[in-house]
Amino acid sequence: MKYCSHCASELTYIIPDGDNRPRFVCPACQAIFYQNPRIVAGTLPVHNGQILLCRRAIEPRRGFWTLPAGFMENGESTEQAALRETWEEAQAVVQLQSLFSMITVPHIDQVHIFFLAELEKAEFAAGDESLEVALFNEEDIPWNELAFPTVSQTLKRYFADSSAQQAAHVFDIGISQALAKGLKSSG
Amino acid sequence: MKYCSHCASELTYIIPDGDNRPRFVCPACQAIFYQNPRIVAGTLPVHNGQILLCRRAIEPRRGFWTLPAGFMENGESTEQAALRETWEEAQAVVQLQSLFSMITVPHIDQVHIFFLAELEKAEFAAGDESLEVALFNEEDIPWNELAFPTVSQTLKRYFADSSAQQAAHVFDIGISQALAKGLKSSG
Repeated sequence: MKYCSHCASELTYIIPDGDNRPRFVCPACQAIFYQNPRIVAGTLPVHNGQILLCRRAIEPRRGFWTLPAGFMENGESTEQAALRETWEEAQAVVQLQSLFSMITVPHIDQVHIFFLAELEKAEFAAGDESLEVALFNEEDIPWNELAFPTVSQTLKRYFADSSAQQAAHVFDIGISQALAKGLKSSG
Repeated sequence: MKYCSHCASELTYIIPDGDNRPRFVCPACQAIFYQNPRIVAGTLPVHNGQILLCRRAIEPRRGFWTLPAGFMENGESTEQAALRETWEEAQAVVQLQSLFSMITVPHIDQVHIFFLAELEKAEFAAGDESLEVALFNEEDIPWNELAFPTVSQTLKRYFADSSAQQAAHVFDIGISQALAKGLKSSG
């Protein structure tokens, strides 16, 4: 951020009055530009015990497998965003169940949320952002070809306990990875 | 948004290639400015069956009661944001339990999330953004002086079923209010 989007003046990066952290502030029109985390919403679609995954046709992580998910847009709910992304990426219509995971990814300022969802009929196809879409049994999940740690974590926790009515898994991906590393190096 | 924050050129509002909705796009440097919902994170602090509420010292809704909550910042997790806001507004240190509610407020592009939290000791005070902070029994909750619908809904659902291990309450505040209105006018 260099210029004010209201008046095109050059921005300063200072702590505004009454605030406790630096923000981009316009010295001409006094506008303050807050920067906040973005939500990525998606689903964990289940059909007869199998999971629907999409192989990404776009960067980042082109060619890797992911759960259908993407940036939540203004004006929609988290549930609408999850359903829209599932349609756009996997051309699948699902029934949302409970919120399954909410995972902060602090190094890229994102919060990823996945709803457990039922795919009643095995009807799906690759959307514009997918190379292919397929159903996987637990033993066939391509663990080494998953696109993002939040996808691996969500799948891992799903297979560890697939009860739909449990409390959501809410955690920080950085802390979760540091713990996993600690466990590996101490084991 | 009128000017590019990278190069100060005047922005256009068009559908970029490969996208399906209009965005602010810079015709000079091609930067695309996405606008996404922001997260408000807070807690539902419980001490011996009483709930901790803060009376707001700032607009909007100055003088009204709220659960401690505020905008999540870049670089922190949802849990850290909830704890920080509880400290800033109520000077209270709580133990987070499960995610209790995640409520989209689509008309202002916000998602409000509240964690159930235990306030072990009755130690709290008004932070800079609060006029006063107090513990309330269910029968004393100032229902007509609550600041925001997401706070009322969260409290209402808490008293309806205070089991901590249930699935999170995830919904759209607009739809919830439309349903309530429908029920009222049909009743």
